[in-house]
Amino acid sequence: MRAVDIIQKKRDGAALNVPEIEFFVAGATESSWPDYQVSALLMAIVLRGMTPEETAWLTDAMVRSGTRLDLSSVSGVKVDKHSTGGVGDKTSLVLAPLAAACGARVPMMSGRGLGHTGGTLDKLESIPGFSVRLSPDQIRASLRDIGCALFGQTSEIAPADRKLYALRDVTGTVESIPLISASIMSKKLSEGIDALVLDVKTGSGAFMKSEADSRRLAQSLVDIGNRAGVRTEAFVTTMDTPLGRAVGNAVEVAECIETLKGHGPADLEELSVMLAARLLVVGGLAAEEDDAIRRVRHALDSGAGVELFRRVVERQGGDPRAIDDHSRLPKASSREVIDAPRDGYLQKLDAECVGRASVALGAGRNRVDEGVDPGAGIIVRAKPGERVHRGQALLELLHSHSPNLETARGLAEASIEIGDEPPAIRSLVLERIAASFSSLTS
Amino acid sequence: MRAVDIIQKKRDGAALNVPEIEFFVAGATESSWPDYQVSALLMAIVLRGMTPEETAWLTDAMVRSGTRLDLSSVSGVKVDKHSTGGVGDKTSLVLAPLAAACGARVPMMSGRGLGHTGGTLDKLESIPGFSVRLSPDQIRASLRDIGCALFGQTSEIAPADRKLYALRDVTGTVESIPLISASIMSKKLSEGIDALVLDVKTGSGAFMKSEADSRRLAQSLVDIGNRAGVRTEAFVTTMDTPLGRAVGNAVEVAECIETLKGHGPADLEELSVMLAARLLVVGGLAAEEDDAIRRVRHALDSGAGVELFRRVVERQGGDPRAIDDHSRLPKASSREVIDAPRDGYLQKLDAECVGRASVALGAGRNRVDEGVDPGAGIIVRAKPGERVHRGQALLELLHSHSPNLETARGLAEASIEIGDEPPAIRSLVLERIAASFSSLTS
Repeated sequence: MRAVDIIQKKRDGAALNVPEIEFFVAGATESSWPDYQVSALLMAIVLRGMTPEETAWLTDAMVRSGTRLDLSSVSGVKVDKHSTGGVGDKTSLVLAPLAAACGARVPMMSGRGLGHTGGTLDKLESIPGFSVRLSPDQIRASLRDIGCALFGQTSEIAPADRKLYALRDVTGTVESIPLISASIMSKKLSEGIDALVLDVKTGSGAFMKSEADSRRLAQSLVDIGNRAGVRTEAFVTTMDTPLGRAVGNAVEVAECIETLKGHGPADLEELSVMLAARLLVVGGLAAEEDDAIRRVRHALDSGAGVELFRRVVERQGGDPRAIDDHSRLPKASSREVIDAPRDGYLQKLDAECVGRASVALGAGRNRVDEGVDPGAGIIVRAKPGERVHRGQALLELLHSHSPNLETARGLAEASIEIGDEPPAIRSLVLERIAASFSSLTS
Repeated sequence: MRAVDIIQKKRDGAALNVPEIEFFVAGATESSWPDYQVSALLMAIVLRGMTPEETAWLTDAMVRSGTRLDLSSVSGVKVDKHSTGGVGDKTSLVLAPLAAACGARVPMMSGRGLGHTGGTLDKLESIPGFSVRLSPDQIRASLRDIGCALFGQTSEIAPADRKLYALRDVTGTVESIPLISASIMSKKLSEGIDALVLDVKTGSGAFMKSEADSRRLAQSLVDIGNRAGVRTEAFVTTMDTPLGRAVGNAVEVAECIETLKGHGPADLEELSVMLAARLLVVGGLAAEEDDAIRRVRHALDSGAGVELFRRVVERQGGDPRAIDDHSRLPKASSREVIDAPRDGYLQKLDAECVGRASVALGAGRNRVDEGVDPGAGIIVRAKPGERVHRGQALLELLHSHSPNLETARGLAEASIEIGDEPPAIRSLVLERIAASFSSLTS
């Protein structure tokens, strides 16, 4: 088998077979394929596509490039949720404790923020002392003892994905539904889970801007999961404006804790409860959604969820006092308020602009090797649809002497659109995509 | 300007502009673009194509990656012919002396054989002592003194083409009309010529198997040449069966000399005379084709052509006695005859099979770093359309203990097809493609 023949086959629009895909993934991971051949094939895949079968085989080869987390010794149903990333998108920290409090085992492997979106690991690390580096033994012990572990990817998980992603990033080959799907699912299928719920974001603050692309990505992810024997479903949800009212790290953690205590913003609570309930249903822990929602709501109202989160924080070295005393979380030294320039209805608070403003304040990173300021971020004081008055505070920019304050202010102001009529606002959850009959039986 | 943005632009089907193409070519040549970015863009070009403008700009940037041969001090009209490569395709050695004998200056820069096709340099080097390495001063002096120089590409000519070709060869990005066109024309436009005639081969023994692709390539080459101010026309000619009767190196040189003496095979003589005449017309040395053909025929019949070739051989260090005594050319030690397996009409003598058989005998190379056996090759004893009898010699395989004799014999046998009816045979010259009005006026 020769690399150049495989490249030519895909270039000419044919589907690759299992040995060809395995040869490619192994060659990329072990560098026996030079990078220039890997990138040529990646570009051919971007432009020629992959069938659902090829995408599933690619994912499987990427999983097998590394070591799958072995959770066979952990009893119970293991579930996870994954979001394709958004602005203020913090449901993980709310729903993981809720699902665990309802009896699921939640081994949640997360990533860091990149570009205009935040990352769960950065948020968790804003809790003083919290460590996201857990060994497989620590993960198994946490799942057995408290039902939940929140951690970062180890180097043994899907090394092919790291290699391919680094190359895609510099060769214009990121934008491909098969490649994005295989990248996401190779990590999720390495977690040793039984069920998975995906939150595919769509809109200005999402990587997929169009609803049609988001739906195709959701379908592809669901297809790969179910083919691999992990019960998987996906939701396409809007990311036109930040979720909740906090964008950043410490501010998002504080908002999650308030949500677990029953005082959170309606949109964040609604989405977190729904996704937690679907985890119970898809995982087979609840027979139907109504029952699942009742149980998740009870975990919220009874305080079981926030108590479970407290145990996660304690177990992973974090300061549990931060849960009741948010002043123990990092804080920005300065605050800048963006006012409404006129009376009217807030038409739009553009998620991507707010996200980029937050990055400019120091809360996120543009390059993977940059650090973040845990205290920086943005507080949303008015949401689209609300009537606002000239001079009313719409956004608060939190920072500690950010050198990019002016950039942030410009982006924050650009995110705001005020009009005379109440705007049309899309619902938060646009669609549920479950396994199709064909992928369940194939 | 960032490489990744240019890659993405082409990936999304947009046309690149001059600064982008120049940045790419300079980056590839100087290795400031890593190979993985170059190959990603090459694949995007293969699949998205290039407009005629982009292709012309690419060619121009490739020319300017190196040094153009400066022939401004050589008076007269400088012309060249280029063939896209075939089997037994030896017109260069016939028409260059003929055109020079008619008053043109012919600075002919040629290549080596690769794959199933032969190369002019390999053929010339089978003449004992002949050197294809000429300095620019030697080329200019030869053109002034005798009107013709036959030489290989120097490292100063279009280095971008060497770099890109090496990468295309291993990344499945050879098959692209814009990239093939730019590769060919960057070298031709570096020769400092006034007029160019292209022989675009089509059929089994050509790189372009289909007539439609060959026509598109011809159009692209003509377009680039005329945009660059070099009067250019192209012919699409058939390469279904070897041209002439000799395939190899010394055997092809001998056949060319016989043709210059008026004893050559009809197809080789016809095509060589026609292409030489077109060089005179396109170069403005003859007002119309009839007159040009009369002059070329006179150069042939008077012996002026063969005398000019003798002067080229002498001047470039070759043994001129080989012109009248072919026993001074390298000879194979063994001969193997392939007979007709039955009575009938020779339907086909497949050019690619014969070419590959000749390579197996040692006359060509599969890798650029291999040498060739100058005496090896194949003599065609019957041409398609002829009536043949069982046991009649159709092909003679000439070799010197080739380790691949059995492979060659198998290929030679596979090249033969005999049927009961006379076959339909395509004419040798299928089409002439001249500058379109748009490219002449643009």
